[in-house]
Amino acid sequence: MIIAERKERQVSILEAAENNQEFLRSIFMGCSNGTGHSKLQKYIEQVLFETPSFLKHHVGFGKGSVKELSGKFTNTLIRRQSEKNSNEVIIDLINNIVPYAVNVASPYFVGHMTSAIPPFMIQLKAIAAALNQNVVKLETSGVVSLVEKQVLAKIHRLIYRRTQDFYDHHVQNQDTTLGCFTEGGTVANITALWAARDALLAPRDGFGGVEKEGVEAGYRAYGIDRCIVLVSRLGHYSLRKAGGILGIGSENIIPVEVDENSRINIHSLAKKIEEIKSESSRNRLLAIVGIGGTTETGTIDPLKEMGEICAENGVHFHVDAAWGGPALLSEKYSYLLEGIDLADSVTIDGHKQFYMPMSSGMVYFKDPYIMNNVSYRANYIIRDGSGDLGIRSASGSREANSLILHSALRIMGARGYGLLVEHGIETARQLAEEIMRRPDFHLVTPPELNILTYQIYPEHYGRILEDSPDKEEIIYQNINEINRTIQRQQRECGIGFVSRTVLVNKNAPYREKVVLRIVIANPMTNMDILKEVIDEQEQIYKSILPGYELNL
Amino acid sequence: MIIAERKERQVSILEAAENNQEFLRSIFMGCSNGTGHSKLQKYIEQVLFETPSFLKHHVGFGKGSVKELSGKFTNTLIRRQSEKNSNEVIIDLINNIVPYAVNVASPYFVGHMTSAIPPFMIQLKAIAAALNQNVVKLETSGVVSLVEKQVLAKIHRLIYRRTQDFYDHHVQNQDTTLGCFTEGGTVANITALWAARDALLAPRDGFGGVEKEGVEAGYRAYGIDRCIVLVSRLGHYSLRKAGGILGIGSENIIPVEVDENSRINIHSLAKKIEEIKSESSRNRLLAIVGIGGTTETGTIDPLKEMGEICAENGVHFHVDAAWGGPALLSEKYSYLLEGIDLADSVTIDGHKQFYMPMSSGMVYFKDPYIMNNVSYRANYIIRDGSGDLGIRSASGSREANSLILHSALRIMGARGYGLLVEHGIETARQLAEEIMRRPDFHLVTPPELNILTYQIYPEHYGRILEDSPDKEEIIYQNINEINRTIQRQQRECGIGFVSRTVLVNKNAPYREKVVLRIVIANPMTNMDILKEVIDEQEQIYKSILPGYELNL
Repeated sequence: MIIAERKERQVSILEAAENNQEFLRSIFMGCSNGTGHSKLQKYIEQVLFETPSFLKHHVGFGKGSVKELSGKFTNTLIRRQSEKNSNEVIIDLINNIVPYAVNVASPYFVGHMTSAIPPFMIQLKAIAAALNQNVVKLETSGVVSLVEKQVLAKIHRLIYRRTQDFYDHHVQNQDTTLGCFTEGGTVANITALWAARDALLAPRDGFGGVEKEGVEAGYRAYGIDRCIVLVSRLGHYSLRKAGGILGIGSENIIPVEVDENSRINIHSLAKKIEEIKSESSRNRLLAIVGIGGTTETGTIDPLKEMGEICAENGVHFHVDAAWGGPALLSEKYSYLLEGIDLADSVTIDGHKQFYMPMSSGMVYFKDPYIMNNVSYRANYIIRDGSGDLGIRSASGSREANSLILHSALRIMGARGYGLLVEHGIETARQLAEEIMRRPDFHLVTPPELNILTYQIYPEHYGRILEDSPDKEEIIYQNINEINRTIQRQQRECGIGFVSRTVLVNKNAPYREKVVLRIVIANPMTNMDILKEVIDEQEQIYKSILPGYELNL
Repeated sequence: MIIAERKERQVSILEAAENNQEFLRSIFMGCSNGTGHSKLQKYIEQVLFETPSFLKHHVGFGKGSVKELSGKFTNTLIRRQSEKNSNEVIIDLINNIVPYAVNVASPYFVGHMTSAIPPFMIQLKAIAAALNQNVVKLETSGVVSLVEKQVLAKIHRLIYRRTQDFYDHHVQNQDTTLGCFTEGGTVANITALWAARDALLAPRDGFGGVEKEGVEAGYRAYGIDRCIVLVSRLGHYSLRKAGGILGIGSENIIPVEVDENSRINIHSLAKKIEEIKSESSRNRLLAIVGIGGTTETGTIDPLKEMGEICAENGVHFHVDAAWGGPALLSEKYSYLLEGIDLADSVTIDGHKQFYMPMSSGMVYFKDPYIMNNVSYRANYIIRDGSGDLGIRSASGSREANSLILHSALRIMGARGYGLLVEHGIETARQLAEEIMRRPDFHLVTPPELNILTYQIYPEHYGRILEDSPDKEEIIYQNINEINRTIQRQQRECGIGFVSRTVLVNKNAPYREKVVLRIVIANPMTNMDILKEVIDEQEQIYKSILPGYELNL
C-alpha cells in the first residue's frame, strides 16, 4: 500500500516535471497552435509591413487623460500562474494598452524629436532582437562587431574626412576607437566628457590618473580647484547631468549667452574664458561644447569659430550634434555644420535624424586613442587583445543597433538621408512664412534646421502696449498663459500636437517667454497638415481669448 | 529658344522634386511592391514566429574566423545612392551577414549569459519598436509611462515586500522612484552608486551637494580624502567602471577575498572595514556591494550578513543581482537571495534571466526619494510636476522595454520564470555530478545558481606531481594551456561553446587558474546536449595532450 502510494506520487512528480518541461518548450519554441495565433500573425504582419496604417488605426485613440488612466495600473502583485498564452497577452496589449500610447508617427505630431520611422527600421530591429547578439564581446556577436566598427568608421569619415590611409588603418583596428554606440545622446555626451576629463587629468609622475584615483586626487595632482565646461544657454540638460555624474559638478557646466539667432555669442564666450582664467589660476576649462542643432530652436553654434577658440586655448571641443549631425548627408545643407571636423568628440543620435527606432546614440572621437584612458578588462571577456568592443565604452552588454544603421545607410544612401534633411528645413521655412503672414502669430526663432518656435501674440496687444506701457507685465503674463493653454488643449483634444518651451527674452523685463515649438521630422508632414495644426491653434486661441481680456 | 530651355529645366526640377517626394513616401510607407517583398515577408514570419528554426538554419554557419572576415568590412565610404530597396538589403543581411553572427540561442551555446529568448519577446520588441515611444516624457509615451511605473513597482515588491499601503502610495506617484529601466546592468550599477554617492555627499550648510559642486568640493565639505566601495573579488567590472565615471576612482572599488565557495569572506570584509576606518578618519565607506550571482561562478554572497554589517556601519548596501535576481520568482530557490531586501539598491538585468531581448537593465531603490538628489529638469520636457520619467534617471530618451517585461510577466507568471530558474540550477547540478564522474575533469566551482566552472585536469598529472613536486609549475602551466586551447578549438570548430575565465587559486603558488565555464540559461539545454559538449572537449583534449607531454 505504502509502496503503491509512493509510486503514484513519483509518477505525479514526473508528470509535473514533464508538464513543466512542456510549458517551457512551448514558450521557447513559440506558441504556433495556441489560441489567437492567426490573429496575432495578422497584427504582426501589419506592424512590420503596414506600419503607418497599423499605427493610424491602433495608436492614440484611447480616451481619458493619463491621470485618469493611472488608476488602471496600480496592481503591484505578480501573479503566480501564466494569465494567458503569449498570443492572447500580446493581442490584449494591442487592444487595451496601445490605444493609449502616443502616435508619434502621425504627420500631425510635430512637437518632439521622436517621430515616424520607416517600416524597414522595425523589420531590422526585429531581426536584431531575434539574433540577440551582445556586442560587448566577439564571442556573442561575431561578425556584428566588425559591422559595427565599419559603420562607426563611415560616420567618422562623414564628420572628419580624414585620409583613406587613416581609415584603412583604423576601420578594423582592435586597439583604437573611432566611436561608440550608446543608449542615446545622454550617454554619448557623458562618454565624451568622460574621455575629456580623463585626457585632462591623465596619469603623470606619481599620479595614476583621474580614472583610477578619482577627481579629488586629480585636482590635487594638477593643482586645480574647479573644472569648467562652457556651453550655450541652449545646451541640452544631459550636459549638466554629465557634470554631476562625472564628479565635476553640474554647476560647473556654465551657460553662455546666445545672440539674437540663438547661437552662442562668441564675444560672451571669449569673455567667459578670460573671466575663468583671471578668476583663479586653479580654474581649468575642461571642455567647450558647441551645439549642432539645439533641442529647443534647432540652431547651430558657430562651430568653426568655437573650434578655433578651443585650439587656441588647448581645450577639448565637443560638438553635441545629437539632432543635426545627419545634415552632413545633405549636399545642400552640410555647410551648416562647417567646423564640426574641429571637434575632439561629436554626439549624434541614431533615433533622431537617422530615423532609427528608439533608442540609439553614438559618440565619435577625433583621436582614436582617447578612449584608452577609460578601458576596462575582465577575465572572462574583454580580455586584452580580444578585440571585444566592450573594452572601451560606457556600456556593458548591449544590443546590435549598428546592424540597423549599417543596412539603413545602404537602403537610404547619403542622398535619401539628404532628402529628409532638406524636406525638414524647407518645410520649416515655408511654415515660418505662413506664421509671419498670420496677424496673431509671432515667429520667435526662425528655422535654421527643421525646428522653429513661435507664439500666439494677439495683434491688438501691441496697440494696448503702446497706449498703456504700464500693462506690460500683465500682457506678457497673458501671452504666456494663452500659449500654455493652447498647447495643452490641443494636446488633449486636438488633431495636432506641438510642444512648448520657455525661452529667455534678454531684452524684455519679464524674461520668460512661453513659446510653441514645431519639429519637422516626418516627410509626410506637409504644409497642408501644418496649416491645419496652426488653424486649430487659432481656433482654440479665439475661444479662450475672451477669458484673458478681463484683466486688461 | 531660351525660354523653352528654361521651361524644360523647371519641369525637370519639379519632376525631381516629385521623384524625391515619391522616394521618401515609399520609404516611410513601406516597400510592399518592391522586389523581394514576398521573400522578405516569409523570412520575417520565420524570425518572429519560428525563431528557433530560423536561427538554427541561418545563424552561425559562416566559415572563417573573425580575423579573416574583417577584410570584408573595410569600406568606409557612404554611397550616395540607395544601393537596393529595403527588402533586398534585408535579404542580403540575412544571407550574407547573419551566417557569421553567433547562434547564442543554440542549446549547445552554454558559455555566456546571452542565450535563447522566447519568440514572444521578439514580437513584443517589434511592437515596441513600431510604437517608437520615448519614455523620457509623457508627451511621447502616454500610457507606457504608467505601465513602466507599474512593472517597476511589481519587481520592487518582489524584492522588498513592503506593505500594500506602501505600493498603493508609490506605484503611480510622480514624485517618487521605486526603480529605473536602464540600458543594462552596467548603467544600473552606475546609477546605484551615483545615488549612493549623492546621498553620502548631500547638500548641507554652505554646500550645495556633490551633484552640483562636484566630488572635490564634496570631500572638502565632509572632510573626506577618499571614498571606498567594497565588493568581493568576483565583483563585476562595471563597478570599477562606475568608480571611474563617478569620480571616486576605480582603484577605490576595493576587492575583498572570497571563501572556498566563492562568496565574500565576511571576516575579510569586517577586517577591511576596520582597516579603512583605522587608516584614516578621512576615509569614508561609500557602499558595500553584495553579489546576487557572480558573473564568473554564479555564487551568491551572504546578503543577510552583509546587510547587517552595512546597517551597523551606516553604509549604503548595493546588491548586484543582475544575474540572479529573477531567482526570487522560484519558490524553491528564492531563499538563496535571503537578505536582498536589506539592500538600499538592487541591480537586475532584463536581458539575462528575465529572458528579454538585448539590452535591458533595471535598478531598484529601497528609499523612493533617493533619486531626488539626482533630478534634472528642462524647459521643454521633464518640467516640474510633469510626471515625466526622465527627471530622475541616468538615461535621457529611451525605448519602452517596460512594455516587454509587463507582458512577459503576464505570459510567464511567477511560476514560469521559477521553472526556468529551477531548470538551470538542477541541470547545472546534474552536470556537476557528471564532471565529477570523469577522471580527467575537475570541478572547480560547484553550481549555486546555474553556472559552474571546471578544468580538464589530466588524471596522471596528479601522480606526476606526487612523484616530482618540482614539476608543479610546469604542470600548472600545462593545465592552463590545455584548457585555453580546448576552449578555443571548440569555439572555432566544434558543436559546443563554453567560455573560459581565470580564477585565482589562493592556496597554490601559481595563482592563476584557467577554468572552463558553463552557464545554463536555455531550457532546451539538457544533459544529453551537455554530455555531447564535454565529450567534444574530451576528444580535443586527447588530441592535444601528446603535445603537452613533451615537457614533463
